[in-house]
Amino acid sequence: MLKVGILGGGQLGRMLLQAAANYQVETHVMENDDECPAAHLCRYFIKGNIRDFDDVYNFGKSLDALTIEIENVNIDALEKLESEGVKIYPKPSVLRIIKNKVYQKQYYLENGIPTSEFAVLQSLKEIHQWEQLLPAVQKLAEGGYDGRGVQIIDDLSSSHLGFDAHSVLEKKIKIKKEVAAIIAVDQDGKTALYPPVEMVFNKDLNLLDYQLCPADIPQNVLWKVEAVSLAVVRNFKSPGLFAVELFVDQNDDVFVNETAPRVHNSGHHTIEAHYSSQFDMLWRIILGHPLGNTKYILPSVMVNVIGSDGHSGEPKYEGLNEVLKIDNAFVHIYGKHQTKPGRKMGHITVLSNEKQDLIHKANKIKQLLSVVSAS
Amino acid sequence: MLKVGILGGGQLGRMLLQAAANYQVETHVMENDDECPAAHLCRYFIKGNIRDFDDVYNFGKSLDALTIEIENVNIDALEKLESEGVKIYPKPSVLRIIKNKVYQKQYYLENGIPTSEFAVLQSLKEIHQWEQLLPAVQKLAEGGYDGRGVQIIDDLSSSHLGFDAHSVLEKKIKIKKEVAAIIAVDQDGKTALYPPVEMVFNKDLNLLDYQLCPADIPQNVLWKVEAVSLAVVRNFKSPGLFAVELFVDQNDDVFVNETAPRVHNSGHHTIEAHYSSQFDMLWRIILGHPLGNTKYILPSVMVNVIGSDGHSGEPKYEGLNEVLKIDNAFVHIYGKHQTKPGRKMGHITVLSNEKQDLIHKANKIKQLLSVVSAS
Repeated sequence: MLKVGILGGGQLGRMLLQAAANYQVETHVMENDDECPAAHLCRYFIKGNIRDFDDVYNFGKSLDALTIEIENVNIDALEKLESEGVKIYPKPSVLRIIKNKVYQKQYYLENGIPTSEFAVLQSLKEIHQWEQLLPAVQKLAEGGYDGRGVQIIDDLSSSHLGFDAHSVLEKKIKIKKEVAAIIAVDQDGKTALYPPVEMVFNKDLNLLDYQLCPADIPQNVLWKVEAVSLAVVRNFKSPGLFAVELFVDQNDDVFVNETAPRVHNSGHHTIEAHYSSQFDMLWRIILGHPLGNTKYILPSVMVNVIGSDGHSGEPKYEGLNEVLKIDNAFVHIYGKHQTKPGRKMGHITVLSNEKQDLIHKANKIKQLLSVVSAS
Repeated sequence: MLKVGILGGGQLGRMLLQAAANYQVETHVMENDDECPAAHLCRYFIKGNIRDFDDVYNFGKSLDALTIEIENVNIDALEKLESEGVKIYPKPSVLRIIKNKVYQKQYYLENGIPTSEFAVLQSLKEIHQWEQLLPAVQKLAEGGYDGRGVQIIDDLSSSHLGFDAHSVLEKKIKIKKEVAAIIAVDQDGKTALYPPVEMVFNKDLNLLDYQLCPADIPQNVLWKVEAVSLAVVRNFKSPGLFAVELFVDQNDDVFVNETAPRVHNSGHHTIEAHYSSQFDMLWRIILGHPLGNTKYILPSVMVNVIGSDGHSGEPKYEGLNEVLKIDNAFVHIYGKHQTKPGRKMGHITVLSNEKQDLIHKANKIKQLLSVVSAS
């Protein structure tokens, strides 16, 4: 039986382990919290720091393969493990590119992949040389996650809001739609593309409101999204599961925003709505099985369940029973022991052939359900 | 967080735990094999004998609720736990009836539920008083499982094949179809019925060939199946998840064959084909959530993956990659460390709107896949 490790024990690890139980595989997880969502669904749990060389190396050295559920891992250790024959999904070389937003942008540029214009800053004062990029989005080269490490700079007068650090300054695109595409690459380089999804944001909170599958985009835009997403992953020359986030602008041009080299929030709907889920697909890749079917069974909407503002502590899911009465909704609670404002605590997927039903249910779920502290 | 124990750690436990990870629940499993399919997907695993009073009592006494994945458990311990306030799904009183095939038949009789004519035998010689029931099926009162403890007796000349033991002798019904219905009963007695499935048997091996959902039966038979199944569970007066197996005879009359008071092989297709799977449904019942939606998303066929004759030892799944190429098939391998002839090692579900596609794929899967010993 293949021994496969997962670095990170959050909800992505949890859902990977739910899918792993359909296959013959010995699962191992490392995370620094032995009450994390994935801790009790694996064969072996190791408490350790995924950013520490020794911890990652010692965890991986007796395994056949390793994958990640977060990019922020010790890549040096993964490179050493790779040189010793452990298969890493994705390859550490991909993690080096993606973990650093400067390298990531340079990768797109070097490979002719459309992405917004940008400049690399070493310090905040350099922003004055790049007024033509404003309004822009400044992103820290390293350390950002889930909206942190990102700052919008409208003009030079607001440049003091920016980070005085190694970062990338990206010209803002006039976004018509935000879409994402999950792509699988097997060990022979064969690819399979999921139908792109459309992400609908709450502009005030810069938080995902809901996510529709398939994206409502014209055929010519779909083709661009598919071609660009495939170009992103093909040039990595690495097996794995990838999520490419893209902007569609007012001219229907397509730009890559960011890529995640792992199972991703934008693929959660695939658990019930598709023949092979993103989690099932990654196991097929790692275990050397044929790629799965990316087609959807029914269109879907996915809503994240987020910790309410002003609430920290043991979570209580108010309105959950009302959501569980919705007859085409699937509930996923991640089992986190603590809620915090903005923390991803679960997600709900709704299946329907009617787009209006999907949007209606998504809004209803957001109204019904809130995560508060129990005490 | 509710603490819920499962007695038994086989594939049913495994699939219950996959579904539990969508909810807030602390899972406990007891089984005498710490490498059983469910051992590493629960929060706490306890090695113990589910037939032993002390083991079951000690396992259950600190839990909020208990359920089973096999009937053959220590009911005395469950009764004591119930009297001390632990909720048991199903109630021990139901297990007493179902575990003993004599009591089970008497229950049907007492509650006016149609079932084949029968006699209760204390010893084999009594069979001569019941010639009018032949050809018949003799079933041991206790201890039978998965086809064991069952003997067909065509006439008195073959009566020596029978069991010289406490048993039930059931007149053979001229079967047109075998169907099964999964029924959920919540803590308030509210019920939800899944569409009945049709079981197609290999007559030579007396093994399930494949199972179709929904059953292809006329409306008037469907109504009888639904009414009879509901009558079976209503009279138990117990929350839980039940599988009622029924015969439809040449006159379209309906007879209960057996009932299982737990998640069941005949409900595996609900994982992908239905909005709420049988496993999801049992958690909803135990956790006090609303009952789920029993409707199917698509029609389905389910094929068991059985250990091949002549093969014992570490399993090897020959043809698995060919099955994984079928674009509407879902694979479940139970992770058992040893295969044996006839042992249930996994199952495959196929979804399709086309019945011919389902039957074609079921037969294809049976041709492609075999479980042999690796060495």
